[in-house]
Amino acid sequence: MENLFEEIQPIVYRDGKVFFLDQTVLPSETRWVEVDSVETCRDAIMRLVVRGAPAIGTAAAFGMLVASRLAPKGSFGDYYSHMKNAKEHLATARPTAVNLFWALKRMDKKILEAREKSLSEIDAIVEKEAMDIQKEDEEVCRAIGINGQEIFDYAGAKDNFTILTHCNAGALATGKYGTALAPVYVARERGLDVKVFVDETRPLLQGSRLTAYELHRAGVDVTVITDGMAASVMGKGWIDACIVGCDRMAANGDAANKIGTYGVALLAKAHNIPFYVACPLSTLDLDTPRGSDIEIEERDPLEITEGMGKLTAPHGVKVYNPAFDVTPHQLISGVITEKRLIRAPYAKAFAEMV
Amino acid sequence: MENLFEEIQPIVYRDGKVFFLDQTVLPSETRWVEVDSVETCRDAIMRLVVRGAPAIGTAAAFGMLVASRLAPKGSFGDYYSHMKNAKEHLATARPTAVNLFWALKRMDKKILEAREKSLSEIDAIVEKEAMDIQKEDEEVCRAIGINGQEIFDYAGAKDNFTILTHCNAGALATGKYGTALAPVYVARERGLDVKVFVDETRPLLQGSRLTAYELHRAGVDVTVITDGMAASVMGKGWIDACIVGCDRMAANGDAANKIGTYGVALLAKAHNIPFYVACPLSTLDLDTPRGSDIEIEERDPLEITEGMGKLTAPHGVKVYNPAFDVTPHQLISGVITEKRLIRAPYAKAFAEMV
Repeated sequence: MENLFEEIQPIVYRDGKVFFLDQTVLPSETRWVEVDSVETCRDAIMRLVVRGAPAIGTAAAFGMLVASRLAPKGSFGDYYSHMKNAKEHLATARPTAVNLFWALKRMDKKILEAREKSLSEIDAIVEKEAMDIQKEDEEVCRAIGINGQEIFDYAGAKDNFTILTHCNAGALATGKYGTALAPVYVARERGLDVKVFVDETRPLLQGSRLTAYELHRAGVDVTVITDGMAASVMGKGWIDACIVGCDRMAANGDAANKIGTYGVALLAKAHNIPFYVACPLSTLDLDTPRGSDIEIEERDPLEITEGMGKLTAPHGVKVYNPAFDVTPHQLISGVITEKRLIRAPYAKAFAEMV
Repeated sequence: MENLFEEIQPIVYRDGKVFFLDQTVLPSETRWVEVDSVETCRDAIMRLVVRGAPAIGTAAAFGMLVASRLAPKGSFGDYYSHMKNAKEHLATARPTAVNLFWALKRMDKKILEAREKSLSEIDAIVEKEAMDIQKEDEEVCRAIGINGQEIFDYAGAKDNFTILTHCNAGALATGKYGTALAPVYVARERGLDVKVFVDETRPLLQGSRLTAYELHRAGVDVTVITDGMAASVMGKGWIDACIVGCDRMAANGDAANKIGTYGVALLAKAHNIPFYVACPLSTLDLDTPRGSDIEIEERDPLEITEGMGKLTAPHGVKVYNPAFDVTPHQLISGVITEKRLIRAPYAKAFAEMV
């Protein structure tokens, strides 16, 4: 399966088969996981084979596609009951990223709307919907990239404009372009070279393993630092703006994102560096009034103490391992959506937009 | 050599032999390096077999002791020329920690003062001076621990007082007690249980590998977090104070310490958490007016990209790997020395004290 698919793409649907790029083994290996059951899909989302809010949504949609293939083809009732089970099982894969629930709800709605049709027609609708979600994600990311140009243009669109990002909100987290990295890729298409510093993003190193991988592959000038170096790099005046992704944005603009993001936002504020969150509207959760209402996933302590296959802390020591933190809206200079770059007050803009 | 020396001690002098505890392989292995040449000593300091500002000073002093054993025993001129070479070679091991130069200067001064004595008498003086430096370091650390009680007493000396520390400024970095951890150890002797959160401290993980190891072994309630989690833990209100060590303090109170410390100080300020630096007077460098004058060591990029024996970033990607950063004195709530806990303005207090 090595180098099977040329372009960086976390989820590939080809010849009726669903493949996830195994992001847990990048950059040392390019390995593809064939998703042939709901359980394989759920397990891949849990283990972060596929990760990043938009990609998790698309992965869940393709999980539903796989489920439809295995569904009993007698009555709609039996078919739907199978799909509902699949949906509920997939929904337990990860608690924080809202795109998971968003995509599952959208698939569910399509199936229910088509209940009068034949099951083979419904299968085709499910397939089309999963493909549409992936395609729309790509379009949304491109639009975010375009709207994000405002950040560089505001600063005079100079070469050597340098951003700092955290974790991976790039092509590997989405259909294409990414969210936080979309402005960088679109800038390149315009002939503007934006430089990137990326926090390695412990514990799972999505910054060094994934963001550095995809930017380096695309020829972008990228420098890896450890998470603790962000303050120092900002203090040297090397960073013009921070751009990060988002796993769930509350109605007031509070943003749940990879652990460490809140710290980056505070450091940016201390250095008067603007801090932007790239956020497709599918990541916006108007049912969640504020960040403190977002459930934060806690993950296995071994990710920290044996994360790299080597014991890095004494046996039996306590570990705290939240996967996300919440950046309050007051620290966010702007939210880059596929419609436009939004400035505060966010609650009002979101309510008008959705 | 396993478990040869019961107590946590980075440098052991026994039966005329010098041993360094190899801190690069903790916590999985307890391995001792016998230091039988100046080169072994310098290499051990460079590779961080022994690290932490006070321990580096002591290590260099014992490096001079080893040098004295190997020195030609004809004339003082030949002897001193050998010792001077040793001193100059050891001084190149690491550029930032001032204790290295401080200890070497002190050894050199003792030798020059004894120039009229016999070489065997000078050898004995060198031996005593190295042992004195180690012993004084232990006493200094205990005094820092006692003076640091003010932090807890000011807060009402409550149990569950929780500090956050970064890197390792504990027993493994000093003669005993440590600097930043000394207040925690002394509090325990008083029957006060102070809890500790420790940043793992990438790239070399001295927080999770060393601080967690020694505190856990001593029965202190310690929780390991990744560096990116510090902001989140502070935001939850779990941290009462930060205490960190110091590799060099400038005359104005600016503190060079392990990379990431500056970020911790900014995050503490944003959360109104006091931020203390534990600093023996030997770490104070009055010849350096301010932090921007301190040379910051840059280390091998492989520490970041292959730090744990596994490739964690794509080959050929750029990496920035400074070993230290500088925390400006304005962010420091107090400097804990062996004489007393000093509040700003530091420049005045330091000048009076030294």
